[in-house]
Amino acid sequence: MDAWIISIGNELLIGRVVNTNAAWLAKKLTYLGIAVKRIVVVPDVEEEIVSVLREGLDKADVIITTGGLGPTPDDMTNAAIAKAIGAELVVDPDAERWVSEKYRQRGYPMTPERLKMAQIPRGSRPLYNSAGVAPGIWAEVAGRIIVALPGVPREMEAIFEEQVEPLLKARAPGRCFAEDLFRLAGVPEADLAPLIRDALKLDPRIYVKSHPKGHETGAPLEEIHIYGSAENCEEARRLVELVKSALIREISTRFPQARID
Amino acid sequence: MDAWIISIGNELLIGRVVNTNAAWLAKKLTYLGIAVKRIVVVPDVEEEIVSVLREGLDKADVIITTGGLGPTPDDMTNAAIAKAIGAELVVDPDAERWVSEKYRQRGYPMTPERLKMAQIPRGSRPLYNSAGVAPGIWAEVAGRIIVALPGVPREMEAIFEEQVEPLLKARAPGRCFAEDLFRLAGVPEADLAPLIRDALKLDPRIYVKSHPKGHETGAPLEEIHIYGSAENCEEARRLVELVKSALIREISTRFPQARID
Repeated sequence: MDAWIISIGNELLIGRVVNTNAAWLAKKLTYLGIAVKRIVVVPDVEEEIVSVLREGLDKADVIITTGGLGPTPDDMTNAAIAKAIGAELVVDPDAERWVSEKYRQRGYPMTPERLKMAQIPRGSRPLYNSAGVAPGIWAEVAGRIIVALPGVPREMEAIFEEQVEPLLKARAPGRCFAEDLFRLAGVPEADLAPLIRDALKLDPRIYVKSHPKGHETGAPLEEIHIYGSAENCEEARRLVELVKSALIREISTRFPQARID
Repeated sequence: MDAWIISIGNELLIGRVVNTNAAWLAKKLTYLGIAVKRIVVVPDVEEEIVSVLREGLDKADVIITTGGLGPTPDDMTNAAIAKAIGAELVVDPDAERWVSEKYRQRGYPMTPERLKMAQIPRGSRPLYNSAGVAPGIWAEVAGRIIVALPGVPREMEAIFEEQVEPLLKARAPGRCFAEDLFRLAGVPEADLAPLIRDALKLDPRIYVKSHPKGHETGAPLEEIHIYGSAENCEEARRLVELVKSALIREISTRFPQARID
């Protein structure tokens, strides 16, 4: 199962907000055994959102969007999803009840802006927001899933963990992700390259990547990250350990001066 | 001038790394008066990188990439750019000298992996890396600019500030960005929506966006961000202040209980 994450909001494109939502979701999806193939940040412009949603529907099994579900004029994710999947935008009775109840409890009346948050594409289902007001959306079209979550991290995380994660777990093809890490000092990254190339050949399910943390020629230091998914967690862990120990053995043989921890 | 940022690296797609580079670059470009229209994160897969580069070349004036310039097998940004613009990948004499000199000073010989970092598309120019080894790349094709920067933040920032920023400043169409912010407590975001819609009509160059920071019905609190670009800094600041004061006046009239600071 492949996923795209679509982050909606001008604040991300002017550098006012760092996209921590995408990283949080990417980690969650990875651990569910779902491979995130792309993260796309688009502005609050309906045709841009629709166009990226359509591209995602063409290439991924699951699309998760964040942002654009609130009551202000630049919140247009529900309308964009409806357009992208060719469904009418309608007020959902459950969503309307949730939204109006939350305002009513505090003595606020319903307004067109508040009702807007209860609109979802016909045939999709609203996701209750236990940490805020705007409901999320779960839409399915031609075997593809679109999940729309709010941009406020606390609300996005609540809806994902309470409702989306269990649903995706039931759909995800029983894969398990494992990873391990070691630090290596005293060997420039360029000298590691051939050893990593060999390690990558050990099993196609396992990936090895070095991340330079020091200075390549001055004080070489790398974090070596070994990760991948397999049919079950035991197998995933076994493969990661196999590749890790083979790589450490090679490094120690070729570079006796290397410090590994 | 429109820009795309393309962030290259599996580590971003598994949620191991938060994309602070993209936010840093987005802010820098915004202040140069260059509008960032999209941020795309792609894996270390050549055809994916080539495909997004081509899409970017079709839609933006400037493309900035980060990551994939190092010596390991998964570093392939220089080859992907060459393919995307239809140029041959060649060793640049300046880049080769910079790279070999850095290794030589520490007693390391040149290897194929090190030489790989000195390869750039024919006709483009290398950008000296004062904070590391891998040079950046400045390529131009049919009036479009592609700038490739390393993924290590310190190196990316050094090359951008020392070389890319002055070059872009010379090309950017003399625009200046300004912004201001105020906090508003006691008014739900949904009630602000019509006022923001009116404020957006005051000047097409200025954008207003509310960011919920509290709880919509429990303890409503928003940050209201007003920003935009104009022909010069004085005009940009004037427009931002004009919209800000009009909006505050409206809010105070309509919601006497609102707390603004």
